[in-house]
Formats: sequence, structure tokens, C-alpha cells
Amino acid sequence: MKCPGCWKMLTVAMCMALVACLQAQELQGHVSVILLGATGDLAKKYLWQGLFQLYLDEVGKGYSFSFHGAALTSTKQGQEFITKVLESLSCPEDMVPRRCAELRGQFQQLSQYRRLRTNEDYMALSKDIEAQLEHKGLREAGRVFYFSVPPFAYAGIARSINSSCRPGPGAWLRVVLEKPFGHDHLSAQQLATELGSFFQEEEMYRVDHYLGKQAVAQILPFRDQNRQALDGLWNRHHVERVEIIMKETVDAGGRTSFYEEYGVIRDVLQNHLTEVLTLVAMELPYNVSSSEAVLQHKLQAFRALRGLQKGSAVLGQYQAYGEQVRREQQKPDSFHSLTPTFAGILVHVDNLRWEGVPFFLMSGKAMDERVGYVRILFRNQAYCAQNEKRWVADQSQCLPRQIVFYIGHGELGSPAVLVSRNLFRPSLPSESWKEVEGRPGLHLFGRPLSDYYAYSPVREQDAYSVLMSHIFHGRKDSFITTENLLASWVFWTPLLDSLAHEVPRLYPGGAESGHLLDFEFSGTQLRFSRQQLEQLVPGPGSAPKPSDFQVLRAKYRESPLISAWPEELIAKLADDIEATAVRAVRRFGEFHLALSGGSSPVPLLQQLATRHYGFPWAHTHLWLVDERCVPLRDPESNFQGLQAHLLQHVRVPHYNVHPMPVHLHQRLCAEEDRGAQMYASEISALVTNSSFDLVLLGMGTDGHTASLFPQSPAGLEGTQPVVLTRSPSKPHQRMSLSLPLINRARKVAVLVMGRLKREITMLVSRVGHEPKKWPISGVLPSSGQLVWYMDYEAFLG
Amino acid sequence: MKCPGCWKMLTVAMCMALVACLQAQELQGHVSVILLGATGDLAKKYLWQGLFQLYLDEVGKGYSFSFHGAALTSTKQGQEFITKVLESLSCPEDMVPRRCAELRGQFQQLSQYRRLRTNEDYMALSKDIEAQLEHKGLREAGRVFYFSVPPFAYAGIARSINSSCRPGPGAWLRVVLEKPFGHDHLSAQQLATELGSFFQEEEMYRVDHYLGKQAVAQILPFRDQNRQALDGLWNRHHVERVEIIMKETVDAGGRTSFYEEYGVIRDVLQNHLTEVLTLVAMELPYNVSSSEAVLQHKLQAFRALRGLQKGSAVLGQYQAYGEQVRREQQKPDSFHSLTPTFAGILVHVDNLRWEGVPFFLMSGKAMDERVGYVRILFRNQAYCAQNEKRWVADQSQCLPRQIVFYIGHGELGSPAVLVSRNLFRPSLPSESWKEVEGRPGLHLFGRPLSDYYAYSPVREQDAYSVLMSHIFHGRKDSFITTENLLASWVFWTPLLDSLAHEVPRLYPGGAESGHLLDFEFSGTQLRFSRQQLEQLVPGPGSAPKPSDFQVLRAKYRESPLISAWPEELIAKLADDIEATAVRAVRRFGEFHLALSGGSSPVPLLQQLATRHYGFPWAHTHLWLVDERCVPLRDPESNFQGLQAHLLQHVRVPHYNVHPMPVHLHQRLCAEEDRGAQMYASEISALVTNSSFDLVLLGMGTDGHTASLFPQSPAGLEGTQPVVLTRSPSKPHQRMSLSLPLINRARKVAVLVMGRLKREITMLVSRVGHEPKKWPISGVLPSSGQLVWYMDYEAFLG
Repeated sequence: MKCPGCWKMLTVAMCMALVACLQAQELQGHVSVILLGATGDLAKKYLWQGLFQLYLDEVGKGYSFSFHGAALTSTKQGQEFITKVLESLSCPEDMVPRRCAELRGQFQQLSQYRRLRTNEDYMALSKDIEAQLEHKGLREAGRVFYFSVPPFAYAGIARSINSSCRPGPGAWLRVVLEKPFGHDHLSAQQLATELGSFFQEEEMYRVDHYLGKQAVAQILPFRDQNRQALDGLWNRHHVERVEIIMKETVDAGGRTSFYEEYGVIRDVLQNHLTEVLTLVAMELPYNVSSSEAVLQHKLQAFRALRGLQKGSAVLGQYQAYGEQVRREQQKPDSFHSLTPTFAGILVHVDNLRWEGVPFFLMSGKAMDERVGYVRILFRNQAYCAQNEKRWVADQSQCLPRQIVFYIGHGELGSPAVLVSRNLFRPSLPSESWKEVEGRPGLHLFGRPLSDYYAYSPVREQDAYSVLMSHIFHGRKDSFITTENLLASWVFWTPLLDSLAHEVPRLYPGGAESGHLLDFEFSGTQLRFSRQQLEQLVPGPGSAPKPSDFQVLRAKYRESPLISAWPEELIAKLADDIEATAVRAVRRFGEFHLALSGGSSPVPLLQQLATRHYGFPWAHTHLWLVDERCVPLRDPESNFQGLQAHLLQHVRVPHYNVHPMPVHLHQRLCAEEDRGAQMYASEISALVTNSSFDLVLLGMGTDGHTASLFPQSPAGLEGTQPVVLTRSPSKPHQRMSLSLPLINRARKVAVLVMGRLKREITMLVSRVGHEPKKWPISGVLPSSGQLVWYMDYEAFLG
Repeated sequence: MKCPGCWKMLTVAMCMALVACLQAQELQGHVSVILLGATGDLAKKYLWQGLFQLYLDEVGKGYSFSFHGAALTSTKQGQEFITKVLESLSCPEDMVPRRCAELRGQFQQLSQYRRLRTNEDYMALSKDIEAQLEHKGLREAGRVFYFSVPPFAYAGIARSINSSCRPGPGAWLRVVLEKPFGHDHLSAQQLATELGSFFQEEEMYRVDHYLGKQAVAQILPFRDQNRQALDGLWNRHHVERVEIIMKETVDAGGRTSFYEEYGVIRDVLQNHLTEVLTLVAMELPYNVSSSEAVLQHKLQAFRALRGLQKGSAVLGQYQAYGEQVRREQQKPDSFHSLTPTFAGILVHVDNLRWEGVPFFLMSGKAMDERVGYVRILFRNQAYCAQNEKRWVADQSQCLPRQIVFYIGHGELGSPAVLVSRNLFRPSLPSESWKEVEGRPGLHLFGRPLSDYYAYSPVREQDAYSVLMSHIFHGRKDSFITTENLLASWVFWTPLLDSLAHEVPRLYPGGAESGHLLDFEFSGTQLRFSRQQLEQLVPGPGSAPKPSDFQVLRAKYRESPLISAWPEELIAKLADDIEATAVRAVRRFGEFHLALSGGSSPVPLLQQLATRHYGFPWAHTHLWLVDERCVPLRDPESNFQGLQAHLLQHVRVPHYNVHPMPVHLHQRLCAEEDRGAQMYASEISALVTNSSFDLVLLGMGTDGHTASLFPQSPAGLEGTQPVVLTRSPSKPHQRMSLSLPLINRARKVAVLVMGRLKREITMLVSRVGHEPKKWPISGVLPSSGQLVWYMDYEAFLG
């Protein structure tokens, strides 16, 4: 040091720091930690060690502590238990044994057992704390109550704490809760409401111990510290998929009474994996150390999750599980559990960042290995000009590029952050993360370890130790807020309901499961690969395709009738529509197609959207046959169905799509807004002679078609091409093409499907031209063709 | 054989077959093959052997033959040359030597040389053929003229054939042409027109010898024979990418005079790789053996190709090339060739089957290996539940799934068809394709050979032998029709033009090129990976991002001015628009944005589309500030620009997009169609108080804004919210928001970019409120805010 005055300055600075430190010590005050369920398994295994670690971290930083182990057991027994546990506490590897023994001794001094059963016990505890504070002249900083007890005990304890054991004014209360936090949305809400009557939101710390896993806790800091490199990569343009995985080798043996109630989705996916999902998917707050901002952004990520459906999941159950349940719970041999011990889920995040990127969530018991990880695989957008033998790992953009947060266990055996060397060199805090040493022969995710920049924690820490520290420092973003919890249940509950009676696939467990549990998606549907292999990729010559001989041709009301099983009928109708479209475009340069709403045409739209690659969409105009008078974004809107099942998948020019103007001047189907007239003049302006090339109709059980219902005062006759009508069912108000306009079409196809239509089909086959009674009977194109498409159930019953 | 009458039936059947055969022999007639350029390199290397192979294939099947080698050289020299070539002809391996010698002798007997120079020579040839026919009492079946001569000789020869050497009535003429077929679209068209004046389209067989390569010729039959397995796979939902590759180790040394004229794109990509591309991409005709159907579908595939732009290609030149050119062509040291010897191209096929699937085309000289292949890689849509060590090649859906048509050479050393075993077991004709024997240690495309069902030809055949047979059997689908040729040039010529002055990247050649030639795409842009690695994936702490200090804030016409370099300016404007949108949606539930057309906003739209993940598109209404009166699908339409650069990438609800109704009743901007009034009432119905939340304007060099030009009789004042106007430049007719409507907006942003705007920027800074002279000077929101966004070039010059 060459500056003569520096020493002095440094000394002053050091003195000031010392003073600040002493002041702090005086100011910080006393913290009482009450561990409820102090003699339980979790306490023994993790929590006491976590508290000791907290003490080690905080000792000498200005706080004083007392630790109260509490349970229902007698004082003597409890004290004995605790004494034993305290003796086994361990220090970090880098601490000298003498120092460790010294600190453990101090911690033992500060820790004692007490029975907490009645309200009076809580009052006594509070008094004891206050007396101790007064005796030592300490200011109270706060109290932590750690609930390591079964959920049914929550309410009673919470009431006692609230009424009799709150800290004095100016000191904080923190209650720490362990899952399960309910069984579904309703029960979670009830529990939350109950707890909410005793505690403020900011007083509650719901633990998801996954958030204390070092690799998980590193996700947001990593995204923050590598913002620049990730900025262009962390989105749907670059990410091919995200995998969030927790595999266990153990099974549920010995715990089936719990497991039967919950199953793998409630046990692992609804909480641990969902939390990880939000950390990956959320928009990164400007300031990641702001708990509030993090929690806010997390909630936004929940809002962007696409709802799960039955088809979003595959379920499995290891073969021995049924027998374990029968044995442990004395069930008869006839009892078969449907509880899944394995689940694979496909999640989509519907925002601009993630749209179309599959997020795979998977967890299972009795798997071939114990491992947990989050893997972000990036798309390969390169072509590498040299033979693959010459690809160099840190240069070739054709080798896999991935970022993995390795949560633990597995072949690596420790938490880690892996970044492919052909991606970028990541920045990690060097005081807590160090580069992993080489492990020749070790392959992870398709590449040798040496292909990654790999970091592991300088000091491995148990999740509970990490969380203890976060509780102490009030870092609420490492815990599950009520909003967060309920958002997660809102997401999962519909799936859980829809899967309640699903039979899981049985698997032998361990390596023997082979490829039985592999799964894959097609569109939004998830299935086991094994099944699909047989169905979807047949060898040559197998399984015949729908062909004409399965399609029956006949007459109905003197017009051609085509009948078949549903799938073939839809295929045939789609083929016919395409043929009509191709002919029209060839002749006139465009094709005007008017489609009915409702659920019947959905499979048809899907067929057209995904199987008809030659359909001349660019020259097709789409019109609505009818529309419900509902706001534009209402899921009931016919146009929304068209959007979801067809328009989203094909390229129809914007100008060629003609929704009905049911919503004008902020109101629905008001006569004076003249929406029907507007639509009529749009048709007359664009459709030659107002003759659609094809109108697709359905038929209701009351004989209605389009939105023309029996006895309708408008639309069955007269000159108005488009009319407002009323439906007997909700929503009542409708807009519809009129019969006279429909009958100008070159071709009308009526699609009738399902057993429910059998009666009206019979009836209508016999009636004459009576549109007032049965509007469908008025469908009779004046110079066009009418064809009926009915499945066997509708036609033959 | 247990049936007593069977022998008799069989004998009868055999006799009938024999009779049919003899009848055929009598009926088929005589074929004369005239090989023009019979003493050239190609003839010596491939064509004579091809003709011999044809003879071997067809001998005894009812045709008689004569083979005429022709050239300009003297009869004696020519005959000597040919005699030598004929002696070296080889038979297939499986033919016994005696039979081979016998057939070669016959072939030699049937072959002779003759000089063909003048028209009289052709007349004499024709007479000789006729005399021979008469002499032997043969019917003439047809004549084949194989043009193995330089293109400049085509016209003369064609004229002579047409005038003096056509076969007699009832017999066919086939002329076989070798590339190059032109240098660009214009020259190809000229050549085609010229040839078309001598020959019918059906008489011409343009050779692309790649179509005779066995693996290429197998593409369509493979797709046909494996229709069922491929039906669900051969589309954008399942194909991740297609690679069409031809790598050569040789360089252009010795051929630079040709190569300088052509370069790799004209030499390989425009023809060979493009043909392969169409075979992969085309819709599969119902009957693949119908030449007509195949050619038709091929043309459709051409129509679906998205136009190439400069950014679709990367170019390279091996380092020694320049020196070779200078040496071989006596150029001065200062001469630097820009001819590419390497090209990578990204092709997109814009139809429903292939939309979004990248097709990589690549070819180069002086590469690390000689190999050609087409590789179809399928997407991985699976998650495999077991550790990768337990993945079984034919079962795991997580291992790469690919189909490769291996054209030849490379590590495999022969043509082959490879199908990943986890895909399906393909069907190939067993008489011509056999399974490849195991080759331990051989890896292809990331997997050991044993992971594939691998087939190679039972008998390897040279492409010319294959094509000779196809010419003989009139299989026109193996040749390039005029339409096909021109379609290919239409596709390639704009790219070639745009690349004419592009400097190719130099590469050392061979394995030394390392990763220098690897390329990758981002959106529709292709770039070399090496470059991109430095730019796009910086380590932490490198290259600062645009930040506020680079953005200048000032005043312009008494309103706020924001000025920066173009990229930062666009980023700032996009940020401001997003902020305005978020505020508007928070306050009013929706955001009304009116956008100007033209090219200036394009980077802004792209920025918004791809970088602003938080933009509330679902609640945004998009309006047009102005529109050109052009048909809806015209690329000049402002709405089309909006569609291409923004709407395609984000999800704005259909109802919220408001194109201007410039096309009504099949006509453009007719006053009496009242389109302007329609738009005005749509605005008044949806936009509160007709006040847009944000209007984005530009400024023309004449001071116009929106489509309001100086001295415009409408739109500068008055009560009409939307007006029809005239532009001094084409297309003249416009529709535009009026100044009074614009001035109702809550916020108006004017974006001015580029040096060309410097003068008007200066001028407008000084003028007052003179909208008649400078419409932009009339922009003054009555209660809203006006902000100018100008880049440094526009503002500082």
C-alpha cells in the first residue's frame, strides 16, 4: 500500500464497522424458535440440524436465540429425545472440531424441551419468554413457530398461538407450515381461510422444501446473473423443450395410508415440480432480490398456464403397490387401487415467450434411478458442414445445447448447474459455486461431463438449512404464499378430477420397466410411446384405412344420404368439402364456405385443419351460418370454436374470414345496430349472387337448423338474408342465415351425428315441407345440391 | 404339385406367354440411337456404357437396335476411338464372362461411328436408317438423339434433326439434352424457346443425372410403398428438418473457366439439389408411376417454395480457388473472384404440409469428405423415463428418428436407404434392394449403422445407365421438363442476382475448415455460426446493450424529440409503445393502435413481434393509418406488411384487427362503395370518442404523412374522419385517416429515419402550421401528446 494516509483511513473504516456491529448486536434483539413436533421424524432428520445451522450462521451477528422443542409427549421423555438429537448435530466440514464442540455446547444450552398441549401451556411459554427477556434485559425481535405436525392439528395450535403466544409489540411472528396444504382447490382454500383467521399473510411461511434445494434456489439468480446471454435464448424461438423431473427409486411401502390419499401428482407435481416450473417460466423481475416482485411474477406465470385436460397426463402404478396397500390397510383381495405412483404431464405456457414449447413434468416411485433435474434443451438451428467426427464440443452448434439445474443424486451425486460449452460460459457466484472436477466416462444428457461448464456448491447444504435461514431473514419468495398455493390448486384440480377414475398403467419398477413408461405428445395429447408405436407407425400392410365400402349411400328426403361410422363419416365429409373447394377455386378463383357452430363440426374442423394439406385455404372465404349473441371472447361464441379448431392451424387471409357482427357499439345483437343487415350486405358484396359454394348445417333434436328454431318469426321465409332469432336454450339471442339465403347455395351438407338424433331423424324422414314446425324440412336448395351426412347411430339407431 | 390338370394349365399358360412374347418382338420395331459427341469425355466415361447396359437390359425383348456414335471428327479417328471404348465395356458382375463377351460382340456389331457436321450428313443418316429398315423388313419404333455437346452447338444440331432426320410416321423422336440449361431465368427461357421451335415438349429429355442416382430414384417409390407409415409423419408436425447435401473433396482446379461462369449454386443447387427437394416436398400423387401426375405435383411443389432472399444463403470459397483462376485464366494478381465454391441455403416450403420446416441445401468443393444425402430428421416428441444408458435403439423414441436417402460415397461407400429402427420397418422392393451387412464401428448421423434398417441396391448402377433405360421407356418424370426448368430458375435467379456482389467467406478446405462453414438460421436469416457465436451469445459482461445514454432527448416543433442510432431508436419506440399499451389496458381494458404502412415501420413491427413478450396483444386493437388501393393479396398492401411482420407472430384476436375496406364489390376504393365511411363508423363504434390511444405516423420527403399529400383536397381539414386521397407515386389511390381524426389521438408518434429525410426534417423544423403545403405540419393533437422519433441520420444528417 503506497498511500501513506491509507492506513489511517482503513483503521477509521474498521472502527466504524465495529461500532456498527456492536450497535447492531444491541439493536437486533432476541429470537425465540418454537419447534412444534420436535420429537417427530422430520425434526430428528432435518429440522434440529437446520436450527443448529441457523445458529452457526447467525451467532455473533447481533441476535440472541432460544430454541424450544415442543410436542405432546411428557417433559421427561421429550427432553431425553432432544438431548440425544442435539448430541448428534454436525458442523460444516471446514470447521475445526473444537470450535464445533464449543458452538454445539452453546446451542444445547439454548435449547430445551417443553410440552405444549393446552392453551395454558402456550400462555406459560409466552410468559417464560417474556420473563427471560426481562431478566436478561433483551429486546424481543420475534418468534418462529415451526409446525412439524399433521395438518389436523394446525387449527388448534394456530388458535393458541394467536390468542396466547404472540410476541410483544414491535416484534414479528413467523409461523412455518409444512405440506400437505390441502387435497384439492376447495380443501386448500378452506385450510387457508382457517389459518387466515389467526395469522396475517406475511406471518405465514409455507415450506416447499424444493425451494431450498441449492440448484432450485439458484434458478432465479442464474437467470439474473446471466441475463445478457439468456436474453435472446430464453424463449420459444430457441428453447425446444423443458424437462422438470423427480425420479425416486424407493416405493411407497410403509406409507401407503398417506400415499393412497395423495398419489404422485399431489405428492410431488402440484407442489415441487410446479414451483420449479414457475421459476423457469416466469418473466424475470428487474430486481430478483425483491420478494414481492418475484412472487408477483410467479403468479403471472400461473395465469399463463394452459389448462390441463385428461389427455395432458399419463399415469402409472408400480406393480407391487396394490399388494402393499391391501396388506398395510387390510383391504380384501378384490381391492384395486387407482392411485398413480408415476405421472408424466405435458404443460404449455400460453404467452408469447413460451407458446408451443413443451414442458414435461415427470415423477415416479420405483424408478430405475434417484435423480431430480430441470433441463432446458435448446433447438438446433444449425447445419454443420463437417463430418460429425470432426465436431468439437465447445464449438459445434450441432451438438446438443442445454442448461441443466441438477437438483441432486443421480450419477453426478450432487447438486449442479450445467451449461453446454457450445452455449456460453455462465457466471455463478464464486463464493458459493465451484467448477466440478472432471469425471472421465460420466455422460449426462447425451454428452460427456466435459462438454459442460459444470458447477456445484462450494458447501452442500440441506434444503431445510437453507430454508431456516430464509425464514430467519424473511425471504418470503422462498415460500408458498396463499395466492401461489391456490393458483397451483386451480391449475391441478381439474386434471385430478378428470383422472379420478383413470386406470394407471402397471410397471414392474426399476430398470425392468424398460420403455414401458416412455411417453410422447402429439398436439396437446400425451400418450405412452409403446402403445402409440403399435397404433401410429404400423408396418406396411397392416390396419386398413377407412375406405369406401364402409360408407353407405342411400336417399333421405329424396336427396343423397351418406352414412358411416363417425370417423369415416367425418373423413368422407372432409374429403368432399376439399373436393368442392378445389373445384370452386379452379372455376371461380375462390370458395365460399359457411359453417355452423356448436360441437358437431369440431371433429370435422380438426380433420380439415390437420389432415388436408391440399385444401386451398388461401382462396377460401369462411362465413358463419349462425352465431350466439355473446361477447367476442366468450368461449360460447361459434366464432371462437372456429378460431380454436381451424383458424389457428391454417392460413386463411384475414380478409376472407367473416365473423358475424353480433357485438356492435358495446352491445349484443341490438336491432338498431343493424348487424344482420351489415352481414347480409357483406355477403352480397363478396359472394356472387349470394350463393355460397357450400353451407354446412346441423340438425337439432327439435328439428332446428342454423339458429332457425321452430315457429321462429324470422328467417324461415321472407326476404331478409340474415336475421336475429331466439333460441329456446341459452344464450337465447342468435344471429342466423335465413332459409331463403341457405337455399341459394350451390351445395348444402347437413351433418347429423349421435344416438340422440335418432328420433328426429326418423320423424323428419316422413314430414313434408313444414319449416314452421321443423325448420330443417325447409332446407331445399333451389338450384343447388343437398347431401345428408349421418352416422350410423343417428341413421340406424 | 398335386393337381393332375395343373401341368396342362401351366403348359397352356407358358405357350400363351411365349406367343405374346413373339408377337411383341415382331411388333416393337427398330430403335436407332444417335450419340452426338460420341468421342467426348462424358461419352467415354458413362454414355457408351449406359447404351451397352440398355442393350443388355432390352436384348430379346422385341426391339432391334442400331447405335450411331457421331461427332465432328473424321470417320477414321472417330471409329478408332469408338472401337477402343467398346472393347472396354463391362457387364454386370453376375453375368458369366462368355455371355458377356457374346453380347458385347453383338453390341459392337450394332455400333458404328459417323461424322455429323452438315445438314446433308443428317439427311444421309436418315436415309441410311431408312434403307437399313427396308432392307431388314423392320418397322421403325423411334430415334434417340443424345446431345453430349456444348450448349452453343444445340441449335444447329436441333435444326438439322428437325428438318432432315426425324423418324418416319408413327415412330417417336427423343432428344436428350445435358446441362447447363441456361445461366439464369432469361437465358434458360431463350434456350427453351429456341429448342421449342424444333421439338415438341414430349420429345425432349433434359438430363439431371442426379435423378438417375439409385437412392434419389427411390425417393418417390419409397414414399409410395411406405405410404401408410409415412402418412402421419411426412409433415411439419413431425419433421424437424430436411438436409439435402452434396459435398465434394475435389476442387475446381482445371475447370475454372467453366466454374467462374457458374459457381456452386448454378452447378449443383439449382439443378441436382432442387430436384431432390421437390421429390421430398411434393404431394405424393395417387399413382406414382404416372409421369404426368409426378411432373404436375413437382410443379406444385415449386409454387409452394418461399422466395429466397440474400439472407437465405451463406457463401464460401476455398482459399486456393482465386489463385487457380488467376493461373488458369491468366488474370492479374489484382483479380479477385467472387464465385462461390460453397453454399448453404435455407429453403422454406409455404404450404400446410411443410410450413416452418427448415430445408437445408448445402454443397461445396474442397470439403472434408465426398458424400451426398437427403436426411429427414423427425422431431423428438417423447420423454423417456429411464436413464439413457437403458435406451434400446429400436424402442426408444428419444433417440434420433430419421430417414436418409444416402446418394453415395461417404463412409458407407454405396447408395442406401436408412430408416431408424425406432421409426418403422420400411418396405423396399426386394428384387432391387437388399439389407446392408453389419459394419461394426460405423456411425452415421449420430448413430451406429445397426440402429437403422439399412438397404442398398442389389446391383449398383450408374446414373446414366438408369437414365438410358428411362429414356428408352419414355419415363419423362426422370427428366426436367421445360416448365420444371423454368420454375427452378424463377426460384433461384433472384437469389443469384442479389448475391452477385457478395464476398464469399474463404475456407482452407478439407478437414482444416473446421467449424468455419457451419451455419445456422434465426427466423428466415441464415448466417455462419462462427460469426454469430461472437455476436449473439456473449459471455457475461461483454458488449453493452442500448441504454438510455445513447438516446438523445430534445425538442422538435415544440414537442419532445427522441433521437438515437436506428437500432436503439426502434428499441426505444417499441418500449414506449408497450408501456403505452400496458397503461391503456390497465385503465380501459383495451388499447387502440393505428399503424402506418410502408417500409419504415417494418423493423418496429419485427421488434414488437419477437422481443416484447409482455405486450398485451389480446387486448389490442390494430387499425391502419392508411392503405393503398390494391387488391387484398397484393404485396403492396399495407395490411399485408402488417400481416407478414406482426400478425403472423402474435395472437391478436381476429375481431381486433381492422384492415381498411379498400376492396368492396370487386373494385378498389370506389367512392360509391363508401369504404371510407364504413371505416369511420367502425372507428366510432369501437374507439371511445374516436380517440386512438396511439397513432404511429411517418413523414415523406415531400412532407406528407399518413396518405395525406400536399395540396390534398381531402383529409387535411373538414369533418370526414377517413378519406380517399391520391398519391403522386403509384399506386395513386389511397385511403387515409384525416388530420382531424389523427389529432384526436391521445398520443401521436412520428417515426423518421434515414439520410433521405434530412432535408425535409430541416425544413419542417422551421415552418408553421401549413398542412396544405406540408401535411405533417398539421399534426398537432388537440389534447394528446406528440412525440418525434428520429434517427441520427434524419436529425443530424
